[in-house]
Amino acid sequence: MSFQEQIHDVAQLACVELFTPKFEESFWFFHDVLGMTPTEDDGKSCYLRGYEDRYHHSLKLTRSDKAGIGMVGWRASSPQALERRVAAIEASGKPGKWVEGNKGYGKAYEFTTPDGHKQHLFWDVEYYKAPEELKSKLLSRAQKRPLRGVPVRRLDHVNLLCSDVTKNGQFLMDNLGFLKRENVVFGGQDELAAWFSVSPLVHEVAFTKDQAGPGNRLHHVAFWYGNQGQMLDLADILQEYDVTIEAGPAKHGVSQAYFMYVYEPGGNRIELFGDTGYLIFDPDWKTLTWDESNFFNGGGVWFGGELPQDFFVYGTPIVEAAMAEAEAKDEVAEPAE
Amino acid sequence: MSFQEQIHDVAQLACVELFTPKFEESFWFFHDVLGMTPTEDDGKSCYLRGYEDRYHHSLKLTRSDKAGIGMVGWRASSPQALERRVAAIEASGKPGKWVEGNKGYGKAYEFTTPDGHKQHLFWDVEYYKAPEELKSKLLSRAQKRPLRGVPVRRLDHVNLLCSDVTKNGQFLMDNLGFLKRENVVFGGQDELAAWFSVSPLVHEVAFTKDQAGPGNRLHHVAFWYGNQGQMLDLADILQEYDVTIEAGPAKHGVSQAYFMYVYEPGGNRIELFGDTGYLIFDPDWKTLTWDESNFFNGGGVWFGGELPQDFFVYGTPIVEAAMAEAEAKDEVAEPAE
Amino acid sequence: MSFQEQIHDVAQLACVELFTPKFEESFWFFHDVLGMTPTEDDGKSCYLRGYEDRYHHSLKLTRSDKAGIGMVGWRASSPQALERRVAAIEASGKPGKWVEGNKGYGKAYEFTTPDGHKQHLFWDVEYYKAPEELKSKLLSRAQKRPLRGVPVRRLDHVNLLCSDVTKNGQFLMDNLGFLKRENVVFGGQDELAAWFSVSPLVHEVAFTKDQAGPGNRLHHVAFWYGNQGQMLDLADILQEYDVTIEAGPAKHGVSQAYFMYVYEPGGNRIELFGDTGYLIFDPDWKTLTWDESNFFNGGGVWFGGELPQDFFVYGTPIVEAAMAEAEAKDEVAEPAE
Amino acid sequence: MSFQEQIHDVAQLACVELFTPKFEESFWFFHDVLGMTPTEDDGKSCYLRGYEDRYHHSLKLTRSDKAGIGMVGWRASSPQALERRVAAIEASGKPGKWVEGNKGYGKAYEFTTPDGHKQHLFWDVEYYKAPEELKSKLLSRAQKRPLRGVPVRRLDHVNLLCSDVTKNGQFLMDNLGFLKRENVVFGGQDELAAWFSVSPLVHEVAFTKDQAGPGNRLHHVAFWYGNQGQMLDLADILQEYDVTIEAGPAKHGVSQAYFMYVYEPGGNRIELFGDTGYLIFDPDWKTLTWDESNFFNGGGVWFGGELPQDFFVYGTPIVEAAMAEAEAKDEVAEPAE
Repeated sequence: MSFQEQIHDVAQLACVELFTPKFEESFWFFHDVLGMTPTEDDGKSCYLRGYEDRYHHSLKLTRSDKAGIGMVGWRASSPQALERRVAAIEASGKPGKWVEGNKGYGKAYEFTTPDGHKQHLFWDVEYYKAPEELKSKLLSRAQKRPLRGVPVRRLDHVNLLCSDVTKNGQFLMDNLGFLKRENVVFGGQDELAAWFSVSPLVHEVAFTKDQAGPGNRLHHVAFWYGNQGQMLDLADILQEYDVTIEAGPAKHGVSQAYFMYVYEPGGNRIELFGDTGYLIFDPDWKTLTWDESNFFNGGGVWFGGELPQDFFVYGTPIVEAAMAEAEAKDEVAEPAE
Repeated sequence: MSFQEQIHDVAQLACVELFTPKFEESFWFFHDVLGMTPTEDDGKSCYLRGYEDRYHHSLKLTRSDKAGIGMVGWRASSPQALERRVAAIEASGKPGKWVEGNKGYGKAYEFTTPDGHKQHLFWDVEYYKAPEELKSKLLSRAQKRPLRGVPVRRLDHVNLLCSDVTKNGQFLMDNLGFLKRENVVFGGQDELAAWFSVSPLVHEVAFTKDQAGPGNRLHHVAFWYGNQGQMLDLADILQEYDVTIEAGPAKHGVSQAYFMYVYEPGGNRIELFGDTGYLIFDPDWKTLTWDESNFFNGGGVWFGGELPQDFFVYGTPIVEAAMAEAEAKDEVAEPAE
Repeated sequence: MSFQEQIHDVAQLACVELFTPKFEESFWFFHDVLGMTPTEDDGKSCYLRGYEDRYHHSLKLTRSDKAGIGMVGWRASSPQALERRVAAIEASGKPGKWVEGNKGYGKAYEFTTPDGHKQHLFWDVEYYKAPEELKSKLLSRAQKRPLRGVPVRRLDHVNLLCSDVTKNGQFLMDNLGFLKRENVVFGGQDELAAWFSVSPLVHEVAFTKDQAGPGNRLHHVAFWYGNQGQMLDLADILQEYDVTIEAGPAKHGVSQAYFMYVYEPGGNRIELFGDTGYLIFDPDWKTLTWDESNFFNGGGVWFGGELPQDFFVYGTPIVEAAMAEAEAKDEVAEPAE
Repeated sequence: MSFQEQIHDVAQLACVELFTPKFEESFWFFHDVLGMTPTEDDGKSCYLRGYEDRYHHSLKLTRSDKAGIGMVGWRASSPQALERRVAAIEASGKPGKWVEGNKGYGKAYEFTTPDGHKQHLFWDVEYYKAPEELKSKLLSRAQKRPLRGVPVRRLDHVNLLCSDVTKNGQFLMDNLGFLKRENVVFGGQDELAAWFSVSPLVHEVAFTKDQAGPGNRLHHVAFWYGNQGQMLDLADILQEYDVTIEAGPAKHGVSQAYFMYVYEPGGNRIELFGDTGYLIFDPDWKTLTWDESNFFNGGGVWFGGELPQDFFVYGTPIVEAAMAEAEAKDEVAEPAE
């Protein structure tokens, strides 16, 4: 049997939409603390980007009555690649549809994960053009590094809560060409979490078993610093300004991320990614599987404390009753990173 | 015209061979200071790897009468991809040949750049198997992090001196699927340097105009830390133990690398790479071109001092006469990173 | 009333003695992981120092049947200052005695804290003289920075468990000229911990209420890195080599230390100090007092997780029964840093 | 002969006054980039402080027609200590005078160095009181860490250009109790630079031979980060916003400072201090002397590039003619840090 070659049709995670019931406070967090730059605000949503994000936006921050994730936007590797992936999804028995009029990118194919998380796949994008005073001398930098807070460089990945990790992951593998890089399985049972990528990054998307909700929710969105020291500076600031740090700065075994998880004021969990973790260049990568024998001894946290109980049950939109019940029964087993 | 899709047939830079006329001292540098682990030594060559290099070796250190680079080893993305690239090279009018009996990898296709730098392309590799006492609990780490020096994680890239940057680069682009990420062109003349990659890294290989030699030489081999602080620790140690630091720690504009260049005791220039630089996920990347107006104002060094004259004329094997002449004429214009 | 001027008669914490029931493993920890250099070993004790410790030793590591602290050694500011402090102690009603024959320093005045912790105060010291191959070009560095582990620079402070924080602290203030920089008092009751210094450091010594033992024990000895990144490197190594990290790397509110607490293989808690914290230059400093309202919201840990229960009850020598009892009653209230 | 005990009558460098011909730009630098907080502005001078500076101000920024240093302010260790130092200065044959009405501190004794640099010595200070919204939960922090730029923590030291290093230094040693920690002497000739402190810091003040001017000028004022990573972040920002970096980030051998020198827009050289260097606790410290054999091999720069020629001739107020002449003669020998 010949070696199964990787499909390279999805290029990158390009943008995500977050809902917030506290827009002003959320904007302060993303703008003043994470140093993101707004491109425009249409009254319903504000579009922001990190200073090395190249397109119109990487974050669409939408006023809403509750927290959660709206849309996850992927850029295809080429117009042809886009067509190939659409064909695959259409053939999967779970077709989507083309949508137009999206701010920041052109015609997109809209579909959902088996759990229902909305996804956009597109080719045409609007590049960010910095005004003269924000132009950087660094050709690879889309704009000057801001003087606000501890600025993030770019969007990194998204972690989605779902009812069935294997099923949702398989959908991405079959139809979009994702590879499963690491996962967690306790006692030979169902996958509790799995990490998927189309690039040397360990993940652009992860799925985590939703133990305190119905699935189709958000675990977290991650922005990238690539720098340990900036994480410590950010942690110092978050404490000063009363932003809740859920865990970290600390290092995961899974993905080797130097991480910090915070709740932005609207309630969504945001991860800040403080190094590169490790990169996968081996084309014959086998999924790394953590189990109960090593996940709690290095897998979840390699160093820097423990992941609190909330890390395994909290997601957005918030499901208070289910979360309380899950915690009370003390049967939470969910590793999520 | 349809969008030209990227070829993904070369997966990664897997290993390089360095010649050293001072084997013991070079071994001390790579083993005691860079913390690399030897796999075996056959009397002619010693094979070493960083603690996150996954294969038999990333560095073949060969006893020789002079410094320089032997072979550059690439892993293909699949057996099929290997065949496709061989076919392309065969069709290029500059065919290579299959070679066997390589330590650490299987049958390889050997060919050269137009300048004559020897390259191996292969699929089969021997994975490093850590002995029990060196096994890491971190599943993604090939072995425990060593307790020696400031250990490097993995091989990163190679920078080759050549007589014609454009010609050598075009060969890699046409036959191996490399993309040109950045380059330097002064006054609309010939390319002075160019950086090429097959992955989101800005480069796995770069070509630099050889102004003080005949080409077909080495500018440097780079190992990766991904961590700024470790570079400062390493610099402290290098000064203590009289290893020559040529430049840095400092930050390039090109590639955004936080770099340091040192001469290993055998004479080869080694770069240590102290962060991730930036990663390229945009599938429609246009080559970034630096010229005389911005290369010396941020491109060469973004911050942290200047690149000394030697940086533009020194390479291995050393060509003393030509280097002296070039420096004397004060007409060196070569940017190399 | 005139301003009470500071007494400057004690210059620094010069050395400590630790007992270990597992000498080989403890030596591996201090030598291979913390990179300390042994000066000599008389069969009973091994004398070690960090690479910027200036004297014969900063750590006397003594083979024993149980863990714990032997002696705490202070250098006076002058011969005259030594005489003045001896006179003060003699007058305190709790006199000590002169002892000779100490390795690394001359005639010392031996006395104890009210709890019984043995102290030496002396003037004459033996300076470390690096052998030729270990001499540093850095005039202010006592020897070359070692190539082993993540080397500590110098001894920093000691934290002693005692039955009465106020009483033990007052003894140091009255007789040795220490100033109380910070303390913790819950509900207006007894001091739970207090930090004392004779220099701009926040503490060379701290006292912590011993809730799970009889007092006269060790909470921890701290060595200094002054560098956040090195703490992360050390944490990575400790995990690889199965050394227990009790807490951190994280940042205390008290003293602003970027800390990590580990158990050296012999059982003693060792703190690694990963920055400077803050320095006190204000000559009119008022003790900063933390209480139950702010100690658990920034005082104990400013960022980076929580202090585990063991942090408040574990000390050496180990008192297993009392520790279990204290934890069972869930009435531990001790903040110790 | 008895040991000469240290005088502890001067506690700290409390504030400096800088003149700027470009007030708006200088204010932007100190406020937006260094994140300093203004206390008040009386139209002539603006008073600013780092977020861990405890008093009314550490920097008095005064509108002027040229750059330079106004006054250097020292806090005495007690009222008694102030009287003792005044008596010593009065007896030195070079008396000063009492001045009142100083913003931020009470009655001060004003005197000059032999070269004429104006100094204030005082006891009474006005503590900074943060408004409610700027109060930090960290008891040892005078205010919240700002969200602007890369904020400095506190004033560190001042380096003064003078006509005779030995004479100016001796004045401080004799009358104020400073100790000489390190110095530079080439060929057994005059001191080229010397570093003095009253605390474990290597220097609160240094004198540097003024080779391109008449003396009585400023070499630089230094602010403290104590953090290497923040220096790299600041360097990145300075390049983006076109602030001139003269040298660094790099590490001095002298003082072991991880340094960066920049020209604030008004023309004054500012040092940013990116770690603790080393601290001196040995009460029997002997001055470390660098000479031509080691100053250029580790003393001036331990790692990170070279000190440019301007570093040895540029000062404020600027003396253009003399500077050009000194550079032209190529006989500059001045090490200054």
